[in-house]
Amino acid sequence: MEWDINAIPHINEIPAQHGVFTGASAKILHTFNERMHKDNKIVGSLREAIERSGLQDGMTISFHHHFRNGDYIVNMVVDELAGMGFKNLALAASSLTDVHEALIPHIQNGVITHIETSGLRGGLAEAISDGLMDFPVVFRSHGGRAAAIESEELHIDVAFLGAPSCDPYGNANGYNREEENGSCCGSMGYAKLDALYADTTIILTDHIVGFPNAPFGIPESNVDFIVCVDSVGDPKGIMSGATRFTKNPKELLIAKTAADVIEKSGYFYDGFSMQMGSGGASLATARFLREKMLSSKIKARFALGGITGQIVEMHEEGLVEKILDVQSFDLVAANSLKNNRFHQQIDASFYASYSNEGAAVNQLDFVVLSALEIDTQFNVNVLTGSNGRIRGAIGGHPDAAAGASLSVIVAPLTRGRIPSIVHKVNTVVTPGSTVDVVVTDQGVAVNPLRGELAKRLRDNGIPLCTIEQLQKKAESIVGDPEPIHYSEAIVGVAMARSNSIIDVIRRVREA
Amino acid sequence: MEWDINAIPHINEIPAQHGVFTGASAKILHTFNERMHKDNKIVGSLREAIERSGLQDGMTISFHHHFRNGDYIVNMVVDELAGMGFKNLALAASSLTDVHEALIPHIQNGVITHIETSGLRGGLAEAISDGLMDFPVVFRSHGGRAAAIESEELHIDVAFLGAPSCDPYGNANGYNREEENGSCCGSMGYAKLDALYADTTIILTDHIVGFPNAPFGIPESNVDFIVCVDSVGDPKGIMSGATRFTKNPKELLIAKTAADVIEKSGYFYDGFSMQMGSGGASLATARFLREKMLSSKIKARFALGGITGQIVEMHEEGLVEKILDVQSFDLVAANSLKNNRFHQQIDASFYASYSNEGAAVNQLDFVVLSALEIDTQFNVNVLTGSNGRIRGAIGGHPDAAAGASLSVIVAPLTRGRIPSIVHKVNTVVTPGSTVDVVVTDQGVAVNPLRGELAKRLRDNGIPLCTIEQLQKKAESIVGDPEPIHYSEAIVGVAMARSNSIIDVIRRVREA
Repeated sequence: MEWDINAIPHINEIPAQHGVFTGASAKILHTFNERMHKDNKIVGSLREAIERSGLQDGMTISFHHHFRNGDYIVNMVVDELAGMGFKNLALAASSLTDVHEALIPHIQNGVITHIETSGLRGGLAEAISDGLMDFPVVFRSHGGRAAAIESEELHIDVAFLGAPSCDPYGNANGYNREEENGSCCGSMGYAKLDALYADTTIILTDHIVGFPNAPFGIPESNVDFIVCVDSVGDPKGIMSGATRFTKNPKELLIAKTAADVIEKSGYFYDGFSMQMGSGGASLATARFLREKMLSSKIKARFALGGITGQIVEMHEEGLVEKILDVQSFDLVAANSLKNNRFHQQIDASFYASYSNEGAAVNQLDFVVLSALEIDTQFNVNVLTGSNGRIRGAIGGHPDAAAGASLSVIVAPLTRGRIPSIVHKVNTVVTPGSTVDVVVTDQGVAVNPLRGELAKRLRDNGIPLCTIEQLQKKAESIVGDPEPIHYSEAIVGVAMARSNSIIDVIRRVREA
Repeated sequence: MEWDINAIPHINEIPAQHGVFTGASAKILHTFNERMHKDNKIVGSLREAIERSGLQDGMTISFHHHFRNGDYIVNMVVDELAGMGFKNLALAASSLTDVHEALIPHIQNGVITHIETSGLRGGLAEAISDGLMDFPVVFRSHGGRAAAIESEELHIDVAFLGAPSCDPYGNANGYNREEENGSCCGSMGYAKLDALYADTTIILTDHIVGFPNAPFGIPESNVDFIVCVDSVGDPKGIMSGATRFTKNPKELLIAKTAADVIEKSGYFYDGFSMQMGSGGASLATARFLREKMLSSKIKARFALGGITGQIVEMHEEGLVEKILDVQSFDLVAANSLKNNRFHQQIDASFYASYSNEGAAVNQLDFVVLSALEIDTQFNVNVLTGSNGRIRGAIGGHPDAAAGASLSVIVAPLTRGRIPSIVHKVNTVVTPGSTVDVVVTDQGVAVNPLRGELAKRLRDNGIPLCTIEQLQKKAESIVGDPEPIHYSEAIVGVAMARSNSIIDVIRRVREA
């Protein structure tokens, strides 16, 4: 036998006197109701939570982006960390946006010396494009970030997670049931994984509710400290009432064409699965698809991803059986998550992790995605603008494109004087081999890797052109764009969803 | 700056030619519907799953006990492991019962050389009491097991988890929505934690359902392989239709007294929290409490633990706001979990982990628990019989007793010729310092540590006696039990919920 009795911990500490055990700690005698107010995980201040978290210089802190441009948490926490004298921290957010311009002085002062994120916008994106940081920003897709967290390539020391509701022990959610007018973000899909993997998780909330705050997005078993704050964010910035339906005729034309492509692609059948982006053309595509579903009596098994009111409407009328929601894009979606039993909150790993073979993106029939640039190799850029500067976010783009049997990229051929179809995208975010169809207002191109798909579409009456024809048409309208002059300095690194490097963003040289 | 660009993995593998990326794997082109049947985690046989799991001699395998005495999984898997020639495995089950007598030959043959469990019954308990195993069985409470898993004191190499439904990617649940007559166990609370922490998780199921099997008890992101089996268990052994209400007059008297004690204890107020066991007297106590709640217009904030139809009835009539369910004891409870939004499935850590300060047991006003023996130090034994042999299970007993402000132990003063109140229990499972009130059919005793509680009960008209008086009364009825003669050999080790040793079970010497 290989088992040794000494392998049992404490085997030498058998109580000497049988029936005498002194190891039990004193009981708490006051009521559950009193406990909630006295013995809980709520600490007096953000500073106290940080002090107790064990955070040290050089560690990694994480944040979620479910509050979008209404977020107060990132700036609030980094202000506090700066005031406490922390230096050389890595900030790993699921994404960053305009409102995080306030980080610039903290980067200049050395509080934050590294950033990982899905995207950057506004003043912070501009400053980083101009060389604000010595160390390049690492951009990952949502699925790549999940895989990096799971593999510990991205180790989170302390997660600071804002929550619209939390009970005194840490059961947190993206809405609250006790007060209708509170802040609300719906799904906390990105935050869920951070809470699970972080060494220490701190919830910041503006609504302490009674235990148990069930169903919960984040369980108390993943939470260490809770901090009450006046407000986690600006409700107007967090959520729109409902994502609006476009009236832009160019977008409507693209959407109608995309819906026709999907209908004839072979992936539109009873029981199909889909992901639809939140851009104007994607939303409109969902609406055109809805009409086709009604007239063909076809239903979807599930809709995935960032969820909009448009998808919820289809769920509630029985056209979409289940919703898997990693991020709720509008108030209609958030309320559906709260009220519809088969509208399920999922975490980032379940959604798209590269290391998770069963990730939901791998079950997609089709996805409709937007783009800033698409090149003649079908590579897609959603991160940098036509001037080579950072202005967007990878999001789940490469994950859904790789997972779906049919990835449809929708974009206008030109935006003002800027072509969307180019010789080479400034930054490769989604590799062309995972992109199947490009739908513009001026024509549809199928990736030559998908010859069978092109044939099926042509046989079903969808006119196709080549991607080179689209590029030439764009060039004929707006001319060939001025080449960008780059310096050698690297300001950003775009990771493929496998967390190898797919591209780097070099600093643009002044003209 | 401390960050070094070489800290970015693969930084030296920047694609040489900008815009060329060859790292993306080939796309899967068939539909979601076809994928479900072709590209999934289902393997051809249990043997194949074991081969691919990386299991080696000397490793630890785990099982859940949600199928109770109807379980087919443990025996099926160990039979297969024996056939494959595995030796020296540790079997860590959340509990074991009569049906697992079939393990005996595998223990004799050295396939299983160590067992961890909450309890043992029937032939296996008898054989182990008789010295079947060289190495003592380690008994842990449900909360202690959760803490041991979280701390890696109990490291699970491969978890074999039976599930009444599972989709082809591993989303598993304790019921299925696609067919009403399948096997069903309700909550999979103990299995959830094993799936999360095991190096490899294998789901065994008799109902493959469409993706996504949402809401799910175990998410696909925690599952590696799926094996289809004819049946996971005998539905009759897994579930009773509904736990019956006792007609035993002794149990009814105990229950009525326990409900009176709770009512007058100071822990019965609007918004209280409770856990009720599944024994006859506990169930009846819930029924008497229900009447008091109706007449006093008092509601419970939540009910916790193993859940019965009795609690569900109170939930559905609005008397219990939320249910936190780690284990469903009957079909009514399982169906409620499926259909009631605020009947929430929780895992073992959330329920009771010793290392989880916010565990739900710590939010209990009161718990009603049964006992085999209680001694004059208020220590409770639920593991060994009056003959010193193993015949029960620790369950969540010490967890709930320690967590609740008021722990009420219900037991008849005598069972046949066997006293329940004794000088010293044979095995200390729940330490007396966490036991507050003992309710028998012949009197109520309050732990002297709870003087304030005794006073409150007396002031409210509850007659009390001492635990010594109860012991003497039992002795006067059935006499002093024959002393048990133990040998030095240790057959079992009872761990306190903190995973220190609280007692050992020595082998009884033949008379």
